[in-house]
Amino acid sequence: MSPRNPPPKNTAKGQALYAKARTLIPGGTQLLSKRPEMFLPGGWPNYYTKAKGAEVTDLDGNTFIDMSVCGIGATVLGYADPDVDNAVKAAIDGGSMTTLNSPEEVTLAELLVGLHPWSRRVRFSRAGGEAMAIAVRIARAYTNRQVIAFCGYHGWHDWYLSANLADDSSLDGHLLAGLAPKGVPRGLVGLMQPFHYNDLDGLKTIAREHGANLAAIVMEPVRNPPAPGFLEGVRQVARESGAVLVFDEVTAGFRINCGGIHLTLGVEPDIAVFAKALGNGYPISAILGREDVMSAAQETFISSTAWTERIGPTAAVATLTKYKAENVSAHLVRIGERVMAGWRAAAADANLPLDISGIPPLAHFAIKVPEAQMARTVFTQLMLDHGYLAKDAFYAMYAHTDAHVDGFIDACGIVFDQIADAARTERLSKMLRGPVAHSGFQRLT
Amino acid sequence: MSPRNPPPKNTAKGQALYAKARTLIPGGTQLLSKRPEMFLPGGWPNYYTKAKGAEVTDLDGNTFIDMSVCGIGATVLGYADPDVDNAVKAAIDGGSMTTLNSPEEVTLAELLVGLHPWSRRVRFSRAGGEAMAIAVRIARAYTNRQVIAFCGYHGWHDWYLSANLADDSSLDGHLLAGLAPKGVPRGLVGLMQPFHYNDLDGLKTIAREHGANLAAIVMEPVRNPPAPGFLEGVRQVARESGAVLVFDEVTAGFRINCGGIHLTLGVEPDIAVFAKALGNGYPISAILGREDVMSAAQETFISSTAWTERIGPTAAVATLTKYKAENVSAHLVRIGERVMAGWRAAAADANLPLDISGIPPLAHFAIKVPEAQMARTVFTQLMLDHGYLAKDAFYAMYAHTDAHVDGFIDACGIVFDQIADAARTERLSKMLRGPVAHSGFQRLT
Repeated sequence: MSPRNPPPKNTAKGQALYAKARTLIPGGTQLLSKRPEMFLPGGWPNYYTKAKGAEVTDLDGNTFIDMSVCGIGATVLGYADPDVDNAVKAAIDGGSMTTLNSPEEVTLAELLVGLHPWSRRVRFSRAGGEAMAIAVRIARAYTNRQVIAFCGYHGWHDWYLSANLADDSSLDGHLLAGLAPKGVPRGLVGLMQPFHYNDLDGLKTIAREHGANLAAIVMEPVRNPPAPGFLEGVRQVARESGAVLVFDEVTAGFRINCGGIHLTLGVEPDIAVFAKALGNGYPISAILGREDVMSAAQETFISSTAWTERIGPTAAVATLTKYKAENVSAHLVRIGERVMAGWRAAAADANLPLDISGIPPLAHFAIKVPEAQMARTVFTQLMLDHGYLAKDAFYAMYAHTDAHVDGFIDACGIVFDQIADAARTERLSKMLRGPVAHSGFQRLT
Repeated sequence: MSPRNPPPKNTAKGQALYAKARTLIPGGTQLLSKRPEMFLPGGWPNYYTKAKGAEVTDLDGNTFIDMSVCGIGATVLGYADPDVDNAVKAAIDGGSMTTLNSPEEVTLAELLVGLHPWSRRVRFSRAGGEAMAIAVRIARAYTNRQVIAFCGYHGWHDWYLSANLADDSSLDGHLLAGLAPKGVPRGLVGLMQPFHYNDLDGLKTIAREHGANLAAIVMEPVRNPPAPGFLEGVRQVARESGAVLVFDEVTAGFRINCGGIHLTLGVEPDIAVFAKALGNGYPISAILGREDVMSAAQETFISSTAWTERIGPTAAVATLTKYKAENVSAHLVRIGERVMAGWRAAAADANLPLDISGIPPLAHFAIKVPEAQMARTVFTQLMLDHGYLAKDAFYAMYAHTDAHVDGFIDACGIVFDQIADAARTERLSKMLRGPVAHSGFQRLT
C-alpha cells in the first residue's frame, strides 16, 4: 500500500534546466504536449536521464513509473525495448546513412501493405504532421481539387492551421483549442471545412457545398466510438464526391490490433497515415494508400534527405514484427481495460464524479468538479509524490505489468479520495503547490 | 594504378530489389537525389548492406569507395563514425524517447547559439525541408506579411513549390528544374518571388514591388561565390523593407568552418537553418535566430512528437563536438581542393573540356561536350567499374583520405580520357550500357 501523504519529490535540477531551456528555445520544448505547463507547472520533472520499460529517471535521480501518456503515444512497447534497440544498433553499426538506399524501407513497405490488403503503395517520412501534409498533397494532386473536409487534430502544417484563418474557433473542439494560425497565408482561407465526429449530416452539407472541389475527407477513424453507420456514410460521401478518404492513424493505429484501427471497423480508406506507434519512439511515419491515389505522389515533388536514413524503417520493421509475434495489442487492451476499471472503482469509492472515455489503450478521464483543471493538476502533483508520472490520460505500453496497474490504481484511490474531499470543502487551491496546468495552446510568459 | 578496363560489377540483387521497390513505393525512393535514375539507370547498386568510413558495400557484395555526394551531404564525418555512433548508442540504452524531454536538446541549443553569437533562440525538427517550412512560418508570423523573395532550392513544402503555380518555370535555374507543384493550393499564387543569386537588382525590384508585404528573403548564403557587395546588399534590402533574412545553411553549413558558412562572409541573417551536416546522417535540423524574430514561434503552432526524441540532438552534439575538436572543416577543404585540382589536371591531360564549380567540400563539374548528360552517365558507369561511387559532384567527408583521392583521381584520368575519345568519335552512346541518367524531376515510367 502507498503511504497516504508521501513527501514531494525534489525536482530542482529539472526545474533549473527548463528555466534555461526557456531562454534558448521559444516555448521551451519541441512539442506542446511535452511542455511541463501541460502537466504540473513548476513541479513536473521536465527532463529524463534514463528510461527502461515503464520506468523513467529524472535529472534529480527520482525514478517514476510512467502511467501517463508514455512517450506521447510513441513508445508502444515500452522504453528502451531490447528487440527494437538491438535491431537499430545493428543498423547503426552497418552505417545508418549512405548515398545508396536502405533496403529496410522496401521490407517495411511490404510489411505495411501486407497488413492492409486494400493498399498497394507507401511513402515514408519521419514525423506525423509531416506525413499528414504529404497525404493531403497527394490527395490534392490526385483529385486536382483543393478543399479538405476534416475533423480532429492533424498537426502544425499550413494546410491544417489554415482552418483557423477565417474564424479562429474552427479548430476548437478538434482536440486542441485555440491553435494560432499566425504566419499561415491568407490565400488558404476557406479551403478547410470542419465537421464533427459522428456528424454525418455536417459532412454531407460540406460535400453538397464543395463537392466538385472536395479533395479529401481527413479524420481519425476512431476518437470516440463511431455511431452505427457513420464511417460507412463517410466512405459513401467520399466515393460519391470523388474525394480521397484519409484516415489519420497516427495515434490510434496498432493499439487494439496489428495495423490501422480501421481494419477492425470494416471501412477502408484511400490513404492511411501512421506515425507514433510505428517505430517505438524512433522517428518514422508512413503514408499508405491505393495504387491509383498514391501514384499522384509521382506527379508532385515530395522528397527529403532525412527520410532515407536506415534507423526509421529498421525500428519499424522490428516493432511491427514484435507486435505480430507477441500479440502486443491484446496486452495493451487488457492493461487499458484494467486501468479504466480501476479508475471507475476508485472514483466510485471516493465519491469523485469521473467521466472516462477513449479506447482502452488510450484512456482518458475528466474530473467533473467545478474547478476541473485545478483538480487534474492536483492529481498529477499528488501522483508524482507517489512515484507516478500521471495525468488525465493513460496510454498503455507492452512494458506495463499487472503490478504496475495494481500500484497505480491503489495510489489513484488515495488521491481521488483526497481530491474529492478537497473539492467538497473548496480546498483544492490550497493543495496545489504551483500554478494550474494549461489545457491547450497558449503563449508562455 | 587502376586497370584501363576493369570488368563491370554485378549489381543484380540491387536491381531486383529496386524493381520490387518500384511496385511498392511511388518514385521508388524517398528522395529524388537517391533515385538510381539520377546516377546510372539499371547499373547503379541502388541499396547497401554496410558502410564504414568512405566505403559502402552493396547487396551483391561489391564494396565501393564513395567519391560521390556521400549521404547526399548528410554524413560529413563519414559512414558509421564511432564517436557519434557511441554517443547515440548510449542514448538508446538510456531510452531514446519518453514522456519527459531530452536534456540534450538544451545542450545543442546552447552549442548552436554559442557558435553563432548573433543568434539567441533555436527550434529543432528532423528534416531540412521541414525546418525551412518552420523558418518561413516564423518569418511570416513575425512580420505579419506573406510574400517570400527567394533564390535556390528549399524543399518540397507548399510554401516553396507554390512558386511554380503561376509560371512553372519560376523554379528553373533554382537547382532542380521542373519541380511539379501539383496539389499545392492555388491561393498561394504570387506569394513567391524568385531572384537569382548575385542579382541584387532583381531582389531590389521585388522589394520595391512587394516591400510592405515582404515577409522574408530566403536563400543559401553561398551556392556560387558571392559578388562583392551582394550579400551586404541583400542584408540592407531586408533591413530596409523589414523582411526577415533567412539563410538556408542545410547544405553549406559546417563545411568550410565550424558553423554557418555565413560566419565566413561577414553578413548575419535573422534566421539560419541547419540540417544535413548537423547529425552525421541522423535526422536533426535546427532553426536558429534572433530573439525577437524567433519569439514569433510562440505566436503560432509548431509542434511534433518526433522532434522530441533523444537521438537527433545527441548525434548533433557529438558531431559538432568532433567538428570543433578535430578541425574537420580544414580537412574537408583540403580534400575538396585536391579533388578539384585532380579533376582539372586529369581533364587537361585528357583534353576533356570540364567546368568545375562549387566550394571545395561541395565540388561539381560539367563535361562540356554536346551529349553532356550522356557523358556524365558514362562517367558514373566507368567509375563504378573501377570501384567508385561517382558522379558529377564530390562531397568531401572527414573519412576521405589522401589515398582515396589519389586512387580516385587516377581512375578519373583513365575515364576522362575514354570519355574525351568517345565524345570526339561520337561513340558515347555505344559505351553506355543502359539509359542516360535523369538530370531533374521527372515521373518514373
